[in-house]
Amino acid sequence: MVIVMKPNATQQQIDNISEYLKKLGLGVHISTGAEYTIIGIIGDKRLLGDTPIELMPGVEKTIPIAEPYKLVTKTFKPEPTVIEVRGHKIGGGSLTVIAGPCAVESEEQTLATAIAVKNAGAHMLRGGAYKPRTSPYSFQGLEEEGLKILAEARDATGLPIVSEVISPATLEISLKYLDIIQIGARNMQNFQLLREAGQARVPVILKRGISATIEEWLNAAEYIMSEGNYQVILCERGIRTFETATRNTLDISAVPVLKEKTHLPVIVDPSHGTGKRDLVIPMSLAAIAAGADGLIVEVHRDPLHALSDGPQSLAPDDFADLMKRVTILHDAMEHVNG
Amino acid sequence: MVIVMKPNATQQQIDNISEYLKKLGLGVHISTGAEYTIIGIIGDKRLLGDTPIELMPGVEKTIPIAEPYKLVTKTFKPEPTVIEVRGHKIGGGSLTVIAGPCAVESEEQTLATAIAVKNAGAHMLRGGAYKPRTSPYSFQGLEEEGLKILAEARDATGLPIVSEVISPATLEISLKYLDIIQIGARNMQNFQLLREAGQARVPVILKRGISATIEEWLNAAEYIMSEGNYQVILCERGIRTFETATRNTLDISAVPVLKEKTHLPVIVDPSHGTGKRDLVIPMSLAAIAAGADGLIVEVHRDPLHALSDGPQSLAPDDFADLMKRVTILHDAMEHVNG
Amino acid sequence: MVIVMKPNATQQQIDNISEYLKKLGLGVHISTGAEYTIIGIIGDKRLLGDTPIELMPGVEKTIPIAEPYKLVTKTFKPEPTVIEVRGHKIGGGSLTVIAGPCAVESEEQTLATAIAVKNAGAHMLRGGAYKPRTSPYSFQGLEEEGLKILAEARDATGLPIVSEVISPATLEISLKYLDIIQIGARNMQNFQLLREAGQARVPVILKRGISATIEEWLNAAEYIMSEGNYQVILCERGIRTFETATRNTLDISAVPVLKEKTHLPVIVDPSHGTGKRDLVIPMSLAAIAAGADGLIVEVHRDPLHALSDGPQSLAPDDFADLMKRVTILHDAMEHVNG
Amino acid sequence: MVIVMKPNATQQQIDNISEYLKKLGLGVHISTGAEYTIIGIIGDKRLLGDTPIELMPGVEKTIPIAEPYKLVTKTFKPEPTVIEVRGHKIGGGSLTVIAGPCAVESEEQTLATAIAVKNAGAHMLRGGAYKPRTSPYSFQGLEEEGLKILAEARDATGLPIVSEVISPATLEISLKYLDIIQIGARNMQNFQLLREAGQARVPVILKRGISATIEEWLNAAEYIMSEGNYQVILCERGIRTFETATRNTLDISAVPVLKEKTHLPVIVDPSHGTGKRDLVIPMSLAAIAAGADGLIVEVHRDPLHALSDGPQSLAPDDFADLMKRVTILHDAMEHVNG
Repeated sequence: MVIVMKPNATQQQIDNISEYLKKLGLGVHISTGAEYTIIGIIGDKRLLGDTPIELMPGVEKTIPIAEPYKLVTKTFKPEPTVIEVRGHKIGGGSLTVIAGPCAVESEEQTLATAIAVKNAGAHMLRGGAYKPRTSPYSFQGLEEEGLKILAEARDATGLPIVSEVISPATLEISLKYLDIIQIGARNMQNFQLLREAGQARVPVILKRGISATIEEWLNAAEYIMSEGNYQVILCERGIRTFETATRNTLDISAVPVLKEKTHLPVIVDPSHGTGKRDLVIPMSLAAIAAGADGLIVEVHRDPLHALSDGPQSLAPDDFADLMKRVTILHDAMEHVNG
Repeated sequence: MVIVMKPNATQQQIDNISEYLKKLGLGVHISTGAEYTIIGIIGDKRLLGDTPIELMPGVEKTIPIAEPYKLVTKTFKPEPTVIEVRGHKIGGGSLTVIAGPCAVESEEQTLATAIAVKNAGAHMLRGGAYKPRTSPYSFQGLEEEGLKILAEARDATGLPIVSEVISPATLEISLKYLDIIQIGARNMQNFQLLREAGQARVPVILKRGISATIEEWLNAAEYIMSEGNYQVILCERGIRTFETATRNTLDISAVPVLKEKTHLPVIVDPSHGTGKRDLVIPMSLAAIAAGADGLIVEVHRDPLHALSDGPQSLAPDDFADLMKRVTILHDAMEHVNG
Repeated sequence: MVIVMKPNATQQQIDNISEYLKKLGLGVHISTGAEYTIIGIIGDKRLLGDTPIELMPGVEKTIPIAEPYKLVTKTFKPEPTVIEVRGHKIGGGSLTVIAGPCAVESEEQTLATAIAVKNAGAHMLRGGAYKPRTSPYSFQGLEEEGLKILAEARDATGLPIVSEVISPATLEISLKYLDIIQIGARNMQNFQLLREAGQARVPVILKRGISATIEEWLNAAEYIMSEGNYQVILCERGIRTFETATRNTLDISAVPVLKEKTHLPVIVDPSHGTGKRDLVIPMSLAAIAAGADGLIVEVHRDPLHALSDGPQSLAPDDFADLMKRVTILHDAMEHVNG
Repeated sequence: MVIVMKPNATQQQIDNISEYLKKLGLGVHISTGAEYTIIGIIGDKRLLGDTPIELMPGVEKTIPIAEPYKLVTKTFKPEPTVIEVRGHKIGGGSLTVIAGPCAVESEEQTLATAIAVKNAGAHMLRGGAYKPRTSPYSFQGLEEEGLKILAEARDATGLPIVSEVISPATLEISLKYLDIIQIGARNMQNFQLLREAGQARVPVILKRGISATIEEWLNAAEYIMSEGNYQVILCERGIRTFETATRNTLDISAVPVLKEKTHLPVIVDPSHGTGKRDLVIPMSLAAIAAGADGLIVEVHRDPLHALSDGPQSLAPDDFADLMKRVTILHDAMEHVNG
């Protein structure tokens, strides 16, 4: 951390801070410039605790240098994390496409969609059993009944299953059924839930909060990992901006930024990220070209009657088209990057 | 809801949608313009369920007309809601200032701060026992021990106490101690928590999510009210924008917007809203001038050693100054608005 | 400026940068931490030119310390700037309310509005002659004819006149008529226009760009001042955020932030800042309470027939109400702050 | 346009508006719902002028249906616009890569960079002669001298040249030298400049404003086209969001959104869009995969000494790598999309 003193800070104030830091066991380097004096702090920042340096007399501001997270970084683990689920690998160069309905609505609908996405080449099945909805009067999901239906679909197709958990209680139930649990954008900073997911031993897809910085997102992943669960998959799903032509702005640049900072796999959700069916395929291709490890896509057997998020769901034929194109592109990327 | 058809929509497509809606028991009005045909839907929108009209052939887009919430609106209840806590009224023209440390750190610190804010004229005491923190390695609060300390401070000063709950489990414990529970910005769409707060019978301060629209915020309040708890206080605490001169952008215009839409009391948090001690007083004055029912302010006996959020906490003397000025302004507003 | 080296930077890389800086005549302080080495640069930053330090081998990032502007700062001029226009003072504790129609539409409309706002107590008259409009097919203003009408209204009422310039050519014409020129939000970084306004010798109202940071805004003011025109008035008019309940989010906190950083007067435009007539009065009061030196408000004799921006214009009666309330509040603020 | 009446609007108010519209020659359709009455307006919207319907008694809000622009739309011209410059086609399936230094600094630097990008396969040369800079104290470009250097580089390499104009005066001079003029993000709503560019007869690259919606951007293109210049190329270059890991958030989804709405070619600027050299290649690939017609990329012979925007410039070797990879990807996209 670097402390910038006010232009009119006194030598006494500089000395006071300097001595305070030394008492904590920290080293200090002082640079006296024409206008500003800067104090660099050397040593283990945890010795500082939450001391509000900004409030000390004479201080203009402090500037953090080191990142607050450890386990998510490449410094901690340089090689990419590869997560294996029922024989399929996520990360490390393989392509993972997770597909299925926004919400599990019935056994028949889920099974039909599962078979359709399996036939098109999807690697995993997704479907919402617990739905976080903006209005209390919207459909909230089939809950445990939905999880059972997903498990049946897994039995029928062999596809691993993924679904969202929205609270410690739903996490506990979900662990009985799911291969991967998903934490949604609205819960990215539900720290209680993150901790409990950290105590589970199944992989976790952690979606980016709608206005979360990449740094906050990595801190949320650190919550899970700090409890011992290292199987975290980051999922970019669009951020909130002023633009209204799309539901959110899918931040494709988050993919290469994350690839520089962390060893964790990164996937992209073009369905929520755009909110528009016509944009799902081009943005899936953009995500793969930018280096994403996979996609999570909404597919609905009959988009006309989907109970939620219809406008962004693909029909099975569209999804088959997406799979074909994404697969060709993923193969071509070897030549592009090779 | 209004359905806008594509410029090239066929008469058959228009008829199909029209008949579909009529079958659901809805009325239909069709306006044929030079370029666009528009279908107005008349009747109880709930008959539509989640039918994704946008996906029907020929549809360009749909435009919602009515708001999705009911209980929060002035249509439902025209007169302002006044919430009474241990004899103090929140809303309806009275001024409420809630003050205290960001985090409860010790009995001694909390009691000293409580006495200081009481002497300065504060109406209620706040203090964090469960702290949601971005990094898993930051101080997370004293938990139930912190609640006990708050209760002691209430005994000593007579001030009602307010603290944040971060999960159903912490809500349950907190109800044993608190006069008002607070749901923080990160949990504004933690719907499970909203529902359980709705089943409680104590007032709830619902903070605005950092990137929540006013409409999403009112929907979150509707979650609480739809479970039977009508004692909701809305708290504006800054939204995330591109500006970095302040930690967040305190959206003062949310106050008069809410006053038009809802009967619920509205308070403002200038401490989190700005993140800067020097801005707390001017923004408190702006909030009161704009019509807010009160403030929630961070005060720390010894800001130099606060364990969290130091840079935005006022010292007791600053707070006494704030109370004096806010009180004069609140009185003057009667002449301004009278 | 502070240079943060990469964790794996070599001693050779550190030495190279160090020597490079010394050759430029700059001083260097090196702090070697556990993870990071930090190089503090001491001396006149202009010696660096635009050298892209970030690109030098081993550099992680650079962190600017000093602000890039000078003339706008309180360091340069501690006492508040007071601008006098035809006997009325802007800044330094006096209240300035500038009012008038969004666009000058006709002699009759402008004169009637001018008389109405004069009678209500306004200090200056505003009206658009050159209108920057999003669509090329919208009404673009009466141009020089509009300026003549404004000058007539000044003759009739004695009110100084303010209008927007949108290019060097319109600036030149406008100088023949106006007491104050206004540079709008869309032209806040039209640097050519800023320079030419800097060569003029009339006061300039510089509106904040719709997504300009306060730092960019102060840099824009510096452009004007660096050409010798020190009579700059900053006008907050709302920033673009995700919120759609208001047309923009009026950033009231910009007022106290600016009051800390600059000696220039600060006014607020609640009409464009909110886009809603019902919010103009509460946000005017909030601006004054936060310490603004004045307001610029749209008033239209007959809002029903305004040619542009009708929804945010006040009728003369509403404006008289605003003036009365703002004046009471401005007087009360002496007691609040005294 | 659709008018939504307030829940408590009277029949008289509805009739008044209805008659007002009919007098203007517009048709009217009234839908009376349970809560709201909706009035649909039929006919040529221009008959409305700027009548502020929102202000009429009883009106809750108005909702625009039709877009305000015409010439940019596919309705106006379904087939893609292809712009030919010295034998190279922009749009319509071909790949266009424009490369060169951020600023023209010297003859030697510009020529060396031009030869390097030509050898790597670039199709056009870019370089800034007039630089819009946030601070008045930063390097502002070589001006006409820079244009002459660019023209020499064209003579030497055969590459068409592109440079930014920042005012009507610089536009006039630039037309003597350039093959394509560029209007930068800060001038996207400099309507005077747009009009004058519309009167020129060279192609115009129109960059998206840093916080411009796609709709505002298309309106800006409409300004140029409405003056008769139909050779407009849209350039996405990143929007301002809360995220600080990148300088801007490159909105790749703008590419497919534009491809649905307009016939104009769309290119992407990954250099300004990310502000980070390491992100330029992955985001270039993402842009091409999403369907962009080309790229505009900063390349500097010697990034260590670039006078501006160094951190985002590629070295010639990096650019050669980019060209190779982008070309392979562009070829592969035929199979992906075929």
